[in-house]
Amino acid sequence: MTQVRQWGDGPGLAGAICVVTGGLGFIGSNLVHHLLDAGAAVRVIDGLVPSHGGDRRNVDRPDDNRVDVEVLIARIGETSGDRVGELIDGADVIFNVAGQVSHTASMSDPLNDLHLNALDHAQFLETVRRVNPAVRIVHTSTRQVYGRVASLPVDETTAANPVDVNGVAKLAGEQLHMVYAQAYGLAATSLRLSNVYGPRQRLTSDGLGFLPVFIRHALLGEKIEIFGDGAQRRDCLHVDDVVAALVAATSDPAVGRVYNVGHRCDHSLAEIAGHIVDAAGGATDVRFVPWPGDHQRIDIGSFATDSTLIGAELGWKPEVELEDGLTATMAFYREHPWYLSST
Amino acid sequence: MTQVRQWGDGPGLAGAICVVTGGLGFIGSNLVHHLLDAGAAVRVIDGLVPSHGGDRRNVDRPDDNRVDVEVLIARIGETSGDRVGELIDGADVIFNVAGQVSHTASMSDPLNDLHLNALDHAQFLETVRRVNPAVRIVHTSTRQVYGRVASLPVDETTAANPVDVNGVAKLAGEQLHMVYAQAYGLAATSLRLSNVYGPRQRLTSDGLGFLPVFIRHALLGEKIEIFGDGAQRRDCLHVDDVVAALVAATSDPAVGRVYNVGHRCDHSLAEIAGHIVDAAGGATDVRFVPWPGDHQRIDIGSFATDSTLIGAELGWKPEVELEDGLTATMAFYREHPWYLSST
Repeated sequence: MTQVRQWGDGPGLAGAICVVTGGLGFIGSNLVHHLLDAGAAVRVIDGLVPSHGGDRRNVDRPDDNRVDVEVLIARIGETSGDRVGELIDGADVIFNVAGQVSHTASMSDPLNDLHLNALDHAQFLETVRRVNPAVRIVHTSTRQVYGRVASLPVDETTAANPVDVNGVAKLAGEQLHMVYAQAYGLAATSLRLSNVYGPRQRLTSDGLGFLPVFIRHALLGEKIEIFGDGAQRRDCLHVDDVVAALVAATSDPAVGRVYNVGHRCDHSLAEIAGHIVDAAGGATDVRFVPWPGDHQRIDIGSFATDSTLIGAELGWKPEVELEDGLTATMAFYREHPWYLSST
Repeated sequence: MTQVRQWGDGPGLAGAICVVTGGLGFIGSNLVHHLLDAGAAVRVIDGLVPSHGGDRRNVDRPDDNRVDVEVLIARIGETSGDRVGELIDGADVIFNVAGQVSHTASMSDPLNDLHLNALDHAQFLETVRRVNPAVRIVHTSTRQVYGRVASLPVDETTAANPVDVNGVAKLAGEQLHMVYAQAYGLAATSLRLSNVYGPRQRLTSDGLGFLPVFIRHALLGEKIEIFGDGAQRRDCLHVDDVVAALVAATSDPAVGRVYNVGHRCDHSLAEIAGHIVDAAGGATDVRFVPWPGDHQRIDIGSFATDSTLIGAELGWKPEVELEDGLTATMAFYREHPWYLSST
């Protein structure tokens, strides 16, 4: 599943100096491996915020060659000293993937989410503008910014009406990138990602989306619990497709743009759970349970992403079908069982 | 100009306990006077942030009767102690008008704007939810959230693409109110205000919009400088119309809604400057000067507000025409000359 894709209109990553914020987390670490495979020099900034997805083992290399990755453990909005500025100095590309992803945590601690997803990014953009104003920067946003929508699928002209603090803060972080692009000429792009699954995702926290929870239960032979009737629909994206979108977004037409990044195929949660059970070997039951209040009050109903724009402008499209992606994902976790026991 | 309007579908303000955040500032203090005239009990929270619009003299009463207003000098997001919680306890309505309004200041100090317009409001909403979850709350947002738009006039379905940090942070503050409305049933409304002028506006700061700057220069007989060719259009709203919209927004159909609040008539900046010169008596020149960089990079071009929705749902419409409003405004400042000398 770890394909190395070359994008003809990208800056060419071999020899490029790439910074990955959140590089010890799920999406960030998969990107780190891709960049190393492509011959880039990689620098990582990661806050290792407890209960988030960051873990140093995510960037372990099969050949035990870790010398290519420089890792700074820091919040991207760190204001004491200039470790962040020193790390991004001279970089060609910054993949700004760091963030808080839990919707329920954003409601129980709104200030923390606003700090991690908005204020830290404002501080980071100030650092980028001061130290490395010519860098290419690609930010990851989320389809959560849209909230409940009137019609599906959802394209980028739809007004964003987030239903939780995470959606509000991620939208602010995304818009800050666009403000810096327009006001200061920063070469920034933001990608609104759908639900993402794949290797190196933290499986042992319950707040990081339904996919890692379902996958954990399936791998452990435990019951999968679906809230409500499971009829809500989602399009799920394998992390390799996200990595490809991040790389595609370093090409020139992407500057100053916000793109949806999702899969053309959507499924009901009940269907997705069924595919996960099948991929894990079938020794798991699916059970429908009443909605917990803290989830129901921020539920968005069904969602389906329209990714036409990034396809037309950057040539990106999802390559991994759900069944194949889940099978490969299960194989990865069986080979790396610590993901199921780590806390 | 200080009309007292009664809204048949409002909760009835006589005897109501009303909190006004930012109540020592421009819009807030005009609202305070209206509420006192209507027989409400008024409590004010104001941070008196330097260079903002807050001044204790704004709530001075002609009859020197200030006993009706309880004033707490505090940020609405204050976390030490519970002075804010004690002030809002028992209130019937909160008019949440506090905020940072300078577009250029939001670019020179992005973190401060995000704190004042977003994080403080998140903290405030947590306090409201804890202390007084049944209160009616009306928040003031801004047309700045839209940024540069493709077509005019702009209605609420237009996607928000702010061009400066102020627009990003105000949008986040507005959306936080909507999240709390949807998730917790808070009876919140937000109004996206156009350019506002009238009595009790801070005239001596340059960052609070072009209207107070033009009005100051006209009153002092100084040249009015227009950036560029002055062809950009704006719709200007007298603060009495804003006060009426705030009161209208306490009615039931407004709960969970965001409304544009602007004037149906828009004018070019050159025309607006001409009206201001006329209202001041004509002893002022208008000069066209090149754009300063810090203004040009966040300019939005022309704007015109479509306020159809609030008209249809709440019966609000602007009552004050620009020429009349400016004439009355000039008369107010001639009677209260300290607005021209205060720093």
